[in-house]
Amino acid sequence: MASTRNIAFCYPEDLFVRPGRRNFVGVCGLRSHGKVRERLVVKANVGGYKGVDMINGRKVNGVVASVDLGTRGSDQFVKKSSSVINYDEPVQSWLLGRFVEDRVVYRQTFVIRSYEIGPDKTATMETLMNLLQETALNHVTSSGLAGNGFGATREMSLRKLIWVVTRIHVQVDKYSSWGDVVEIDTWVDAAGKNGMRRDWIIRDSNSQRIITRATSTWVIMNRETRRLSKIPDEVKKEVQPFYLDRMSIPTMDSDCEKIDKLTDETADRIRSGLAPRWSDMDANQHVNNVKYIGWILESVPIDVLEHYNLTSMTLEYRRECRQSNVLESLTTVKSQTAENTQKSIDNNREELESTHLLRMQATDKAEIVRARSVWQSKHKHK
Amino acid sequence: MASTRNIAFCYPEDLFVRPGRRNFVGVCGLRSHGKVRERLVVKANVGGYKGVDMINGRKVNGVVASVDLGTRGSDQFVKKSSSVINYDEPVQSWLLGRFVEDRVVYRQTFVIRSYEIGPDKTATMETLMNLLQETALNHVTSSGLAGNGFGATREMSLRKLIWVVTRIHVQVDKYSSWGDVVEIDTWVDAAGKNGMRRDWIIRDSNSQRIITRATSTWVIMNRETRRLSKIPDEVKKEVQPFYLDRMSIPTMDSDCEKIDKLTDETADRIRSGLAPRWSDMDANQHVNNVKYIGWILESVPIDVLEHYNLTSMTLEYRRECRQSNVLESLTTVKSQTAENTQKSIDNNREELESTHLLRMQATDKAEIVRARSVWQSKHKHK
Repeated sequence: MASTRNIAFCYPEDLFVRPGRRNFVGVCGLRSHGKVRERLVVKANVGGYKGVDMINGRKVNGVVASVDLGTRGSDQFVKKSSSVINYDEPVQSWLLGRFVEDRVVYRQTFVIRSYEIGPDKTATMETLMNLLQETALNHVTSSGLAGNGFGATREMSLRKLIWVVTRIHVQVDKYSSWGDVVEIDTWVDAAGKNGMRRDWIIRDSNSQRIITRATSTWVIMNRETRRLSKIPDEVKKEVQPFYLDRMSIPTMDSDCEKIDKLTDETADRIRSGLAPRWSDMDANQHVNNVKYIGWILESVPIDVLEHYNLTSMTLEYRRECRQSNVLESLTTVKSQTAENTQKSIDNNREELESTHLLRMQATDKAEIVRARSVWQSKHKHK
Repeated sequence: MASTRNIAFCYPEDLFVRPGRRNFVGVCGLRSHGKVRERLVVKANVGGYKGVDMINGRKVNGVVASVDLGTRGSDQFVKKSSSVINYDEPVQSWLLGRFVEDRVVYRQTFVIRSYEIGPDKTATMETLMNLLQETALNHVTSSGLAGNGFGATREMSLRKLIWVVTRIHVQVDKYSSWGDVVEIDTWVDAAGKNGMRRDWIIRDSNSQRIITRATSTWVIMNRETRRLSKIPDEVKKEVQPFYLDRMSIPTMDSDCEKIDKLTDETADRIRSGLAPRWSDMDANQHVNNVKYIGWILESVPIDVLEHYNLTSMTLEYRRECRQSNVLESLTTVKSQTAENTQKSIDNNREELESTHLLRMQATDKAEIVRARSVWQSKHKHK
């Protein structure tokens, strides 16, 4: 049923895997921490809802996201879970999440808080991404697999390996309001030989309607050398029992097209001087993935932010960012049907698509994140 | 038992209340939106744990915080509460909060999430303030008093009145980690004739130990004219049944000393060019109160941020901030015992006190927030 494709990742030379199968689609370049071009091939099963969706149509230039923390292993959590407070187990499971569907799906319930809504009074894209991240981390921790890293399994921690996200795609059908209760389901599957796919769905608890779908691709990196790595067999053995052959978004709908790299010439707007604040840093002294979204939106025209709903976003993470880095945010917006984008925005009646780039402001202008968004007029969007 | 003091607020001239009691401590000047000096007297009961703590020793230059939202009244909430989802009432009350102690104390339980912890792996001050805000708003909503504003009662909404916070003081004994469960209790009391005091305590659910205490002072403002107002009798009738004569922090310990206004000359460090991001805006198109903390910390030396715990913070809100404003953050740090502050920081062994000012970068350098913080060395702090 499912066909097989190879998907190219960047990876360290000493782990090079020769692309031996048909449909190998390319090798990407990456300079990380002064290292030169590296590559890694990930074989993925694709077809229908089986297997992994293609990564950006072809390839992923990975190495990013800070997911290593160094504390809060499963032991600590388990200890907490068994000794904690005076309330009943069911209550606790609502607060902390629980397994459903034979322990392959993890579910957590959240109430949207007042400070998680934006100027349009609904949960922001950052809020959704934060909740997805939280559910994913609690999934790993509750599975009993967690080592001493943030999302890393025990066998990964022993080898100083961490998960890094290379791509995330989110489709929002309806944004929740303050006080709304949402249920998030998450599960994982193989993404070829050396990757993992993590999917989510968000349901409105009241209507039980699915209001958001998301899919992401993860690879493994050594937290010290910052080089990508194959998944060791010991790690595979840990995670495979949790794999579920189900996709939240069909491959064909998951925005697999390559995201163009914006330049000074192709960008409509460039916002410079974006400096991470101390409060943007996570426990690993890196900028948290989710913070990038705020910077991306900094170069989106205010008319779009005010009059359109962000209904889809795809992020390709390419490089880590630290507090000393100063960034530039580039955006180009185009109407999907009309020739004149500004007129479309003014009339507030078209679906818009925007392309984004976050890059270092310093001379090399190194790419941090490429992104693409789809916006629907609030007048049209239900 | 309790003695009576008058506390001066800024308020519109047409609502002037002559300070007729002893201990009246002063009248403050305020220019808000081009308006001239205005004043308002708030009579407060002080003494032991009864009544309100003094506001900044003397006075408050109010007018700030965006607490008006325009949606999510109690009706919506009540509808949700009665029809929502498939879980039992107790579970819902854990998620959304519930009244305890004869309905005068409101309690909400939270799990600290992965994205709410900072570089030192514990919940940040912003996180604590966010959770306090959330509990306060749910308190008003659950009381059945909520109008169509964010925290405003029905009678306030009819009159276009909103609550604005003029001062908040937080004492942190222990910061929580990811996955920790905390219980927040909140209640309100009169702060003299025209103010309200809101207190909070945060307990670690596991140990039931109080790990944070906070107190705040609120006044009423017209959301259109942005002028302060007396509390209408109809509003008093709504809120008085909820008043509780209890203080989370004794007056003498609640950092009532006046906060010095920093200047170019007295500030150790000035960080300019702080621009609110779109994602910093709340549902009222204002900068959310809590975001100021991030900017304040931008001018704190990195050595202090890294090696000290922020154990106490007092914020005096003086003016609203909108997205178009560009701000400057000023900080001065001094050791509480040694002469040489830098040496204290280097040796990481003293308790430090810092004074802060957020002001407009534009010519008038108008004050937004004054603040004071106390920092304890991580090596000493438990």
